[in-house]
Amino acid sequence: MYYHDYLDLDRLLAAQNPLSDVEGRTHDEMLFIIVHQAYELWFKQIIFELDAAMRTFDRQPIKEREMGALVAHFDRIVAIQRVMLEQLEVIETLTPLDFLDFRGVLGTASGFQSVQFRLVENKMGLPRSRRPSTGDAPYTAWLNDEHRRAVEAAEQAKSLADHVESWLERTPFLEMGEYDFWVEYQAAVDVMIAKERQTVESEPGLDTDERDRHLARVDANRDAFEAIFNDERYEAAREEGDRLLSRRAFQAALLINLYRDEPILQLPFRLLTGLVNVDEGFTAWRQRHVLMVTRMIGHRTGTGGTTGAEYLEATARRSRVFTDLVEIPTFLIPRSELPPLPDAVVEAMRFRLEGPAADSVR
Amino acid sequence: MYYHDYLDLDRLLAAQNPLSDVEGRTHDEMLFIIVHQAYELWFKQIIFELDAAMRTFDRQPIKEREMGALVAHFDRIVAIQRVMLEQLEVIETLTPLDFLDFRGVLGTASGFQSVQFRLVENKMGLPRSRRPSTGDAPYTAWLNDEHRRAVEAAEQAKSLADHVESWLERTPFLEMGEYDFWVEYQAAVDVMIAKERQTVESEPGLDTDERDRHLARVDANRDAFEAIFNDERYEAAREEGDRLLSRRAFQAALLINLYRDEPILQLPFRLLTGLVNVDEGFTAWRQRHVLMVTRMIGHRTGTGGTTGAEYLEATARRSRVFTDLVEIPTFLIPRSELPPLPDAVVEAMRFRLEGPAADSVR
Amino acid sequence: MYYHDYLDLDRLLAAQNPLSDVEGRTHDEMLFIIVHQAYELWFKQIIFELDAAMRTFDRQPIKEREMGALVAHFDRIVAIQRVMLEQLEVIETLTPLDFLDFRGVLGTASGFQSVQFRLVENKMGLPRSRRPSTGDAPYTAWLNDEHRRAVEAAEQAKSLADHVESWLERTPFLEMGEYDFWVEYQAAVDVMIAKERQTVESEPGLDTDERDRHLARVDANRDAFEAIFNDERYEAAREEGDRLLSRRAFQAALLINLYRDEPILQLPFRLLTGLVNVDEGFTAWRQRHVLMVTRMIGHRTGTGGTTGAEYLEATARRSRVFTDLVEIPTFLIPRSELPPLPDAVVEAMRFRLEGPAADSVR
Amino acid sequence: MYYHDYLDLDRLLAAQNPLSDVEGRTHDEMLFIIVHQAYELWFKQIIFELDAAMRTFDRQPIKEREMGALVAHFDRIVAIQRVMLEQLEVIETLTPLDFLDFRGVLGTASGFQSVQFRLVENKMGLPRSRRPSTGDAPYTAWLNDEHRRAVEAAEQAKSLADHVESWLERTPFLEMGEYDFWVEYQAAVDVMIAKERQTVESEPGLDTDERDRHLARVDANRDAFEAIFNDERYEAAREEGDRLLSRRAFQAALLINLYRDEPILQLPFRLLTGLVNVDEGFTAWRQRHVLMVTRMIGHRTGTGGTTGAEYLEATARRSRVFTDLVEIPTFLIPRSELPPLPDAVVEAMRFRLEGPAADSVR
Repeated sequence: MYYHDYLDLDRLLAAQNPLSDVEGRTHDEMLFIIVHQAYELWFKQIIFELDAAMRTFDRQPIKEREMGALVAHFDRIVAIQRVMLEQLEVIETLTPLDFLDFRGVLGTASGFQSVQFRLVENKMGLPRSRRPSTGDAPYTAWLNDEHRRAVEAAEQAKSLADHVESWLERTPFLEMGEYDFWVEYQAAVDVMIAKERQTVESEPGLDTDERDRHLARVDANRDAFEAIFNDERYEAAREEGDRLLSRRAFQAALLINLYRDEPILQLPFRLLTGLVNVDEGFTAWRQRHVLMVTRMIGHRTGTGGTTGAEYLEATARRSRVFTDLVEIPTFLIPRSELPPLPDAVVEAMRFRLEGPAADSVR
Repeated sequence: MYYHDYLDLDRLLAAQNPLSDVEGRTHDEMLFIIVHQAYELWFKQIIFELDAAMRTFDRQPIKEREMGALVAHFDRIVAIQRVMLEQLEVIETLTPLDFLDFRGVLGTASGFQSVQFRLVENKMGLPRSRRPSTGDAPYTAWLNDEHRRAVEAAEQAKSLADHVESWLERTPFLEMGEYDFWVEYQAAVDVMIAKERQTVESEPGLDTDERDRHLARVDANRDAFEAIFNDERYEAAREEGDRLLSRRAFQAALLINLYRDEPILQLPFRLLTGLVNVDEGFTAWRQRHVLMVTRMIGHRTGTGGTTGAEYLEATARRSRVFTDLVEIPTFLIPRSELPPLPDAVVEAMRFRLEGPAADSVR
Repeated sequence: MYYHDYLDLDRLLAAQNPLSDVEGRTHDEMLFIIVHQAYELWFKQIIFELDAAMRTFDRQPIKEREMGALVAHFDRIVAIQRVMLEQLEVIETLTPLDFLDFRGVLGTASGFQSVQFRLVENKMGLPRSRRPSTGDAPYTAWLNDEHRRAVEAAEQAKSLADHVESWLERTPFLEMGEYDFWVEYQAAVDVMIAKERQTVESEPGLDTDERDRHLARVDANRDAFEAIFNDERYEAAREEGDRLLSRRAFQAALLINLYRDEPILQLPFRLLTGLVNVDEGFTAWRQRHVLMVTRMIGHRTGTGGTTGAEYLEATARRSRVFTDLVEIPTFLIPRSELPPLPDAVVEAMRFRLEGPAADSVR
Repeated sequence: MYYHDYLDLDRLLAAQNPLSDVEGRTHDEMLFIIVHQAYELWFKQIIFELDAAMRTFDRQPIKEREMGALVAHFDRIVAIQRVMLEQLEVIETLTPLDFLDFRGVLGTASGFQSVQFRLVENKMGLPRSRRPSTGDAPYTAWLNDEHRRAVEAAEQAKSLADHVESWLERTPFLEMGEYDFWVEYQAAVDVMIAKERQTVESEPGLDTDERDRHLARVDANRDAFEAIFNDERYEAAREEGDRLLSRRAFQAALLINLYRDEPILQLPFRLLTGLVNVDEGFTAWRQRHVLMVTRMIGHRTGTGGTTGAEYLEATARRSRVFTDLVEIPTFLIPRSELPPLPDAVVEAMRFRLEGPAADSVR
């Protein structure tokens, strides 16, 4: 086996064909092509990881021994996202004036037409409602037929977000014998809020205005919890597209975060963290991408009234998938207020080898 | 000289005093302190570089032999900003649940109270109008008297942006003998736009709708240029705070970008690029900072109606200083359309050693 | 609570006192001080994490629910090491000529005198035999009495490497009922080597020379395994300082790597990976540090005959602690050759909730 | 123009063909292919930049207005090297055990066979004498005929190092009228060394031993300079391959570093810095690459007696090109000792616009 053949380099290295004259002024088109091709290679790898993760989720129930490999898919995507970020700094070595030298040959070609990136978004589970408006035309309008069909098929198929939701819903720990997580959690929140209120009320030296202001903050805090306590408000938020996860899945995610140290929850916690990392990684990349695009082409306004940079900025703000998980911290309660799990639940979360008395193996 | 004494480590390493119990659960407060102290060290260095740069600008005219060192200040700040970005990933090893364990001891202390970061903003030249609203209170309301005075003094003093504007205005190349850059530039833009219009009009196979759409885009493009051609529109934009640089300074920046290869413009071009890099670097850091804060504390709404994360997000979008320079690409014209400089101007931009015939030294 | 006071910034920001005149040419001494202070802050944090990890190891047996937090210490150190690497690029903005302007004031002060870095090394478990020679004087010769005593005390105390060794030795899975990992592993290696030999011998079209060369490679491979199969060779390597871990601990590390997917081994595998990451991270930093130093001061030879850069280079090559773990890949065998664990062992490694038939919870 | 076609994605994305079954265990081969392909894309871009830089050097004399673009080639390579470093962390998400699952299919294919990387080395100007021994076979022995010829042709052709040497030798400032840089420089060094000696001799309270030790250090320092003062020693070092640059080129590099602030030397200084950056960047990448390889395959010894990791480590230590430039700091003298340039030389280094009295334009 010869390295060059194994990597099919004859094919790979024949795919860079600048349209402008490669001598002199248009030197930089090669960089433009290569950096975009490098991105497409990484998009292919990300899709490969997402597909593999979804195949694992599909083999439900997921075996505990598969959890390590499942988490590894997302850790790898995070490592790739760091490369993606760094590549933006390579593009920024292309100055706006040099870009103008060959910008004309690109015509209407645009990164907006990257099928693979659209597939990444849809496989992650980005709902159409979180895509910024592209005017009258759907976001797929700039793709050719074959690509449009592929992107739409991915939009219809079960996404990573769907799989994660199903997996969370199957968590056996929300109710276990007499234990009901949601009841316990709500009670703990009530106690916590009551304490906060009492602290304000017993605080000496506050004038009425200050007291009212502090109490208003306690109320606002209480109200934030109401958004997940109240069935109708929760479902309304889902209708609005503000929440994607079912309430049961959300509760499971909260439980995993709160009791993450229990042996059986350690890998699930890492999985949820991995999903947040990946979601944040794409957002970070989108944000830096806007900065790069702004720097490269400025803000020349199109006839549509918005500029490319503005559209991308909206994308960076809105096109997130795992916002329910990102928002979990809003609903955490300090360990000091956290209701302890009943012994039976603790036992169920442990390894066989761990004795009931001695709390450990090694 | 002993390393430990030279660095005053007895003092430096006595400054980490977690308020929560350092054992067990509150282990992470030490990280919280140290990472913020590391930021403050870097802010001090950035202020030191900004001050040094401003002292150089103040010794006007700036000697050409000082230009290298001037550019170096901004390259160094960019290197520091990379460290600042990387430090966010260290904070993200602190999980929201662990943060809750000691969040209470922080009380109302907040990064919003970092005097040095406020000084960085004001020394850079951030106008008050570009700070997102902090309600009825000024942005300095959360500082103590001494710090507030220091921050306000920096706001009043001549800023880096002011210095850059003065330096640009002194550029001798805008008019030189019979040469008038602005006249030449406007003419070249007119030719370019006329060509674009003609290309659309002579394009075969366009129906009326398409033609109108394309022509509208040409008009929009023309209109963008009008914003800098037209005196009143330019000044109106300055009044609005949309532009900070005087028109003459803006023209000089445009000239430097367009003719950056002329020997005497090479370092000025690097200086302008350095300023854009620094501005972008702070923006990139603010954006990632928002992601980190969101991840750490979620979106719990304060009584003011906005959350910390939302305020920071507005900051990341709006709190830029060198937007005039960032926007330069909007107004570049391709080299093929660029009017050549008259011989006399080219000569004036060269080294003494360069002969008029042979275009080079080595 | 006021941010400035919480972080003790009056103290922290009073600790930068350049000895050269801060105006003009010696501008860069401030950077030199601040970047070294930033390193010392991070060293303090690393020591804090190492100490916390060792306290956990000390509470043997380690509870399974502590494993997540234990792994997190090393993940955090890895994040800090990325900052440390990035900081080298900040130092590199200081040019050699500018460094010369204040190098004199440093006298004999040297990073070699960083007590905290010496403590990091000793707490990690760096044996004295892996420190490059510093001539007749011990490596502590450049420290003052108080610091020397602290560094020597850390060298005598139980190190992270010692704790890891004890923890690995307590692994209950090396022998469990009739199962003996080492017997199974050796048998599998023998089968693998025999197959390799047979492949060579049955390969058609090899001439005698080629066959001999291939067989010599199989023998060399076999011999590599002998280094861990043979008691005396293993102990000789320990005597030589080539190996630090006891044989039993090494076997446990190998077991964890080979069967890392079993639920109870997933966190231990992450722990071992974290240790390798940290060890590699320090080595990567040492290597880049050599490049930076070389670039700053060249290779001016001291009277001792070696240059600072050469000493540091030796350090980068030799001063590693977890080389036994880094070397594990040498002894891995492909999953296809891996003997399956007996059912009883598999059961012992699972969660209580996992049924013997259904292999999973969710 | 359609993005997908412009980037030839049908071709590019058809080039990933794992040999092992893509399901299950051998999942990771895709990553292995893609990361190596990404490297090859970047090698192509680096070659493209090196070739363009060499074409500029070839158009001697280089016009001053080309210097900015020339420097930019190396700044871009540095940005690419950062991506290359980051990609190593992506490979490290592939665990040794997973690598074993498909390592067999690679057979003898090896990164050692990367033609493009060999071309990069030869175009940079890596002399064969700085390649670590590959036993009896030349380093090209593992390439096919076509590739071997290409690599050998690049070895014969004028390299970047050759071009840089010619360019440095053409510097007009080494002798200019009555000014002779080398005479002035040597005199300044003599004064500096004499001062050092006198400082030691007049230091009160040194005993004889200490004085001798200090004086020996002064002598060693003096001797280091002798290596460049003495014609025969310099040429002997060139014969040995310890130096690559001609003496005249080396002197020019020293001059540029010492008087880098003079207007006409600012871009040349940046060019030399860029070359050092690129050289250091490859070394940093080679070093991290060794760490990654060690971690992936351990130290299994081949029949040749050396392991892949050891060979790569030797490469990282020895395979540098611009060592003469890296070593410049050894020979810098502090600005306080630096002989001022004669007025005529200073004038020759300035811009036409700068008056002889007023030292500046702006």
